[in-house]
This record gives sequence, structure tokens and C-alpha cells, in this order.
Amino acid sequence: MKNIVVLGSTGSIGTQTLDVVRALPDDFRVAGLSAGRNLGLLAEQVAEFKPRMVWCEEGRDSVGGDGASLVPPEEMVTEPDVDLVMVATTGRAGLVPTLNALRAGKAVALSNKEVVVMAGELVTRAAAKHGAPLLPVDSEPSAIWQCMRGEDEPVRRLIITASGGPFRTRPLDEIAGVTPTEALAHPTWVMGRKITIDSSTLMNKGFEVIESRWLFDIPFDRIDVVVHPQSVIHSMIECADGSVKAQMGPPDMRLPIQAALAYPARLDNGKLPRYDPLAWPSLTFEPLDPARYPCFATAVAAGRKEQTYPAVLSAADEEAVHYFLDGRIGFGDIHRIVQSVLDRHESFDASTPEAVLEADAWARREAAAAAGVG
Amino acid sequence: MKNIVVLGSTGSIGTQTLDVVRALPDDFRVAGLSAGRNLGLLAEQVAEFKPRMVWCEEGRDSVGGDGASLVPPEEMVTEPDVDLVMVATTGRAGLVPTLNALRAGKAVALSNKEVVVMAGELVTRAAAKHGAPLLPVDSEPSAIWQCMRGEDEPVRRLIITASGGPFRTRPLDEIAGVTPTEALAHPTWVMGRKITIDSSTLMNKGFEVIESRWLFDIPFDRIDVVVHPQSVIHSMIECADGSVKAQMGPPDMRLPIQAALAYPARLDNGKLPRYDPLAWPSLTFEPLDPARYPCFATAVAAGRKEQTYPAVLSAADEEAVHYFLDGRIGFGDIHRIVQSVLDRHESFDASTPEAVLEADAWARREAAAAAGVG
Repeated sequence: MKNIVVLGSTGSIGTQTLDVVRALPDDFRVAGLSAGRNLGLLAEQVAEFKPRMVWCEEGRDSVGGDGASLVPPEEMVTEPDVDLVMVATTGRAGLVPTLNALRAGKAVALSNKEVVVMAGELVTRAAAKHGAPLLPVDSEPSAIWQCMRGEDEPVRRLIITASGGPFRTRPLDEIAGVTPTEALAHPTWVMGRKITIDSSTLMNKGFEVIESRWLFDIPFDRIDVVVHPQSVIHSMIECADGSVKAQMGPPDMRLPIQAALAYPARLDNGKLPRYDPLAWPSLTFEPLDPARYPCFATAVAAGRKEQTYPAVLSAADEEAVHYFLDGRIGFGDIHRIVQSVLDRHESFDASTPEAVLEADAWARREAAAAAGVG
Repeated sequence: MKNIVVLGSTGSIGTQTLDVVRALPDDFRVAGLSAGRNLGLLAEQVAEFKPRMVWCEEGRDSVGGDGASLVPPEEMVTEPDVDLVMVATTGRAGLVPTLNALRAGKAVALSNKEVVVMAGELVTRAAAKHGAPLLPVDSEPSAIWQCMRGEDEPVRRLIITASGGPFRTRPLDEIAGVTPTEALAHPTWVMGRKITIDSSTLMNKGFEVIESRWLFDIPFDRIDVVVHPQSVIHSMIECADGSVKAQMGPPDMRLPIQAALAYPARLDNGKLPRYDPLAWPSLTFEPLDPARYPCFATAVAAGRKEQTYPAVLSAADEEAVHYFLDGRIGFGDIHRIVQSVLDRHESFDASTPEAVLEADAWARREAAAAAGVG
């Protein structure tokens, strides 16, 4: 029985995490839940899972009760009875709770990939120093991590798959003008709004390259990306002898969520969909077209430059995506804004949370100015 | 540095094993070589690899020299300086050497799958009793074995892939009359003649199901087969939580051979082809059509019945394939003969090599009678 805290419990990954807990009541108990502003759903979750700790960023006066005490996320994660923290927030919100959990030696299941993008060195160093397992939840890094089990030699190469998003076959000259509704219609995955937009620009794939560089301690030039529209092969590793291993499954986030929650065990959960090769009679691969997805190269370049560049990348993107979803900028402006903020950045060392958050705040101001919404 | 013995060194797997040794001279040394009748090639191999032991079933008076002593395979494999035995013979020839090697605690890389088909319980029990690693070489069981590394929980299901062979799309009514030349033209793999015919009937896939049942100690009803014409996904496992792992690579036997020789290490061999997802832009799956491949169901049924049935299956098939290659029977007669021999068999316990070889000899006589060549 593992006691878990779920940060971001009312979002897409949060609710799917609780789906897994619901299916495996003998394996997991919810110790704490935190949400941003979806008070109604949070109250339902508290009533069902009866955590002893709860938090809501907005309107917290009305949560609690049912035996749950108000505890801020950054404190909740360090409580002695907590075994594992699922960080299912988005953007920078996960940074401080993740660091606190790792420093307290807790296992962290990290869905909030921006945390590793903005502060990869800081986070992985904290995990190593405190012997805290840092478990990927994202389907692609989870696939790599699962394939690496039992492989002692360093791998030669990672091959991350990308669905290509909703604009893979759209005429290039139409892409800059697509609407939020079109960008939110992801062909294979049901996800939160921020990551769905990042998946349509392939910024998300650049983030996964940076995330993989840190989680698996592998140089950027040994990480390849290939477009695989069916999202069935979630990623691959090439072992030192050239043998390639892939992790596959129907596109359903509950499987990688459960793999992280249950690690090192694999638990039988009859609620999860099973893979049938005949259900996808053809699995296809295409090269990633850099002209179609300019955010991808921008992201990887920022990752390679290290220091505060990745934090600026993540923050500028988060702002630009929100402007786009709010109808304040066009789809093509997302890349323009992120690139212009990176171009203006004078980087510095990102070895403290304060430095990372300073770069983050600077990037958000610059993004607002670049978007003309400041 | 591992000292290895290669039985069947002049065959397809034998020569590819020596290719791997040639590429990795700091990792492997050849202690012994044995062949059937290809004296010329064996002499070249002795000159190049300088084994201290050699054997040839036919014409052995002219081998030896270059410091190599004549030692029969069943003794060669138990010598104290031998670390690993590659059993790359075909048919029943590998049985006694394999058992001797396992009983001496040697690692056995087993390409000669008929050994496990005919005597699965005997062989796996010997391996377990003497703590001798039994390492698959065949690409499909090797894939399963590689995917299982690091997975501690029992797997839920094996998914073995089958190319479908050269007659996958041939009109059904033409198949019984195909020629040996047509049956030897395998679409994806370059292999020895016996296994190539077994791959055209899918008898080979039935053998792999039986082999997997014993090597991985899993019931038959948890082993599925799917046709995958590109032979790039070599097989898959479904873990207890539903996560599927696949091992992939260009169809080249040197990779699984090396994986077995080097186990548990993975060695960098620049001579091996590397997998590029874009080189196979579409990986496809089809159901196995039982009407097209009657040998498959015959094989699995014999495997399920246990006792001496699998030995009879293997022996009758070996005879029938040789008759077909010699032009004495038609392609469609292979299944007819094997099935009729199995139908006439009165099985007995297969727990000693003598019992297995008795069933084997009986089946060969019956196959000759059924073929009208006795």
C-alpha cells in the first residue's frame, strides 16, 4: 500500500491518476490532493478518496472538511507518511513541490514536464543526492524508462516518437492561421489544453527531448525524433549492441501513470485497454519536417544552450499558449514570440530555484511585450 | 574473454556466429568447431580461428592439424575451458550435445530449436538443475528474452511475429504445388534450407510457440502469433500491467546471435546493421490464416499434447522437409505426412533422452512409409 499525493488532481493527468487509484484500492491510498481552481471536482475527490490533506490555489476557504486539513502543496509533499508524489500540475507550478519532495527522499512521478525542462540539472541533481526516484509519466519518457529496465550498459540512442499533431498534413501556408479549436483536436491523445497546444506545435516534442536528456543522462545528439502518427509505439531505445526495444500500447495515459505509481511492480488493472496488434494494422513512420514545426528546433536549441535558456523557453511558451487559447494571438505567433524572447535573453546559471524563477519571470514579461498584451 | 564451441559451424548460424567472433576478437575465442560434411569450409575456419578441438561427422580423417585435436561434439562441450556452446546444428543432432553441455553447467546458446521442441521438459529441467543459462538465438525467442530483462513479474502474454513466408499472398489452391526453389525464396530472412522450408509452411512458427512455452515457462494459451511481413518487430511481450514491449531490428541473425554470446553484456559491433525507422515506413500486422498454414495448428496441437508428440512432430517434419527438398514429395505432402504420423502415434513419457530418441526414430520410419519412400 503506497500513500500518494496528487498535485493537480482535477486536471487530465490528475483525474486519470485517481482512476488508477480507484481501480487498485489495495495498492494505493490518497494522502493529499491539490488543485488550481476546480473546487467542485476537488470536493468530489475529497469525498471519495478521503485524503487527510487538501489544497486549492483559489477559493481554498471552501475546501477542507471530511477530515481533510488545508496543507500547501510544497509542505504536503514532505509529510512523513507520503510515499510518492504525482506532480500533475502544468508549467512552473510544479517546480518547488517537486524539489521539496525530492529533497525529502520521496518518489516523484513527474507528469509536469516543464519542471525538468526549466530546471533539469537542479531537479536531477536533487533526485540523485537524496536517492529519490524520479519517475517519468509522459508516455514517451515512460516508454524509454520501461525499455531501459534490465539494460545495464549505456544506451546508444533514444528514438522518441511524435504523432505529428493535428496539422501533420495541413498545407503549410494554412498553419499560421489555425484556430484554438482546431489545435485542440489532437488526433490520438486526450490531454490537457496546454500540452495539447504544445503537441500541435511540436514544442512538446522539443520539451521531451530536453526532459530525456536530463532524466536519462544522454547527450542531445543521441536523441532522435521520428513522426509516428498512430501513437502506438511510444518510444524506443537502441542498446549498445544495436538491438532496439520499443514500448507500445493503446494511446491511454493511465498505463504510464500506473507504471510510475506502481514501480517497481507491475499491477494487473483490468480497466486498462489492452494492445491488439490487429487493431492498428499499419504502424507508420515519417521524418519530422522542421519547416512545419519550427518550435521543435527552437526548443532543442534552447535545451542545448543550457543555463537559463530552457527556463525562458518554457515560460515564454506557457505565456504564448495561453494568449493563443485566449484568442489574443494567432497560432503562428507562438513560435515568433518564443523565439524572440530567447533571442533577447542574456542567460545565467540555473543552479538554484531562485535563478530559474527569475529567468521564468523575465521571460513572461518579455513574452507579454512581444505579444503586445503586456 | 569467453571461450566458445560452435556446433554446426559451417551452416548459416555457424558462419554468422564466426562473423560475430571475427568482429569482436577481444571478447570471444573459439575453443572448438564441429560440422557435418562441409570439410572445405571447416578447414578454412580451423585455419582462421585456431580452435584446439575440431570434429566433422563425415570425412573426419582429413580434419585436425593446425593444433586442433579431434573431439566429438558431445565431449567437446563439456571441456573445462569452455564457457559457452553455440548449438547451431539442425534437427535432432543437437540433443545430446545440448544436454551434456547443460549438465556440465555451460551456457548454451540454442539456435537448433528442434532440441527444445522434441525435449522441452528434459532440456529446461537440465538447465535449471545445473544452473546453466539456456539462451535463445532464434530471433523471436531472443526478442522475448530481451524484452523480459528487468521484468520481474510474470508476463501476461507473448506475441510472436511471423513473416508469413513466401506464400502469404499466393492463391491458396496453388500452394500445394510450389517447388523447393519457390519455398526457399524467403521474403525477409536468409537462413539454412531446413528452417527456410519450415518458415514457408509456418511449421517453424509452431516450433517457436513450443520453444517459447518451455523457455519462458508460460502456458500455450498465453502465446499469440501475428503475421508481420516486414520481420522488423521480432516479437513482443505483454507485461502484467498491459504494457507491451517489443524488440526490433533489421532482419539479421547476427544481432540475436551476439546477444546470446555476449549475455549479460551488450557489445558494440560496428559490423551489424542499425535500425532506422524510416527504412521501414510501414510495419504491418495481419491475422494468421489457419487454412493457409495447416502445419502451424498441427505443431501447436502436438506441443499441447506433450509426452513424445513434439518429438514425433519434429522428426516427421525433418524427414518430410528433406523428401520435399529432394524432390520426392510435393509441398502439400509435408503437412499430410506429419499429420498422419502424429495421428498414428501412441505417445509415452519423454523424460529421458532415450525415450525422445526412440520416438524420433519411430517417427522417421513412419514418415518414410507415409511418403512412400521407405
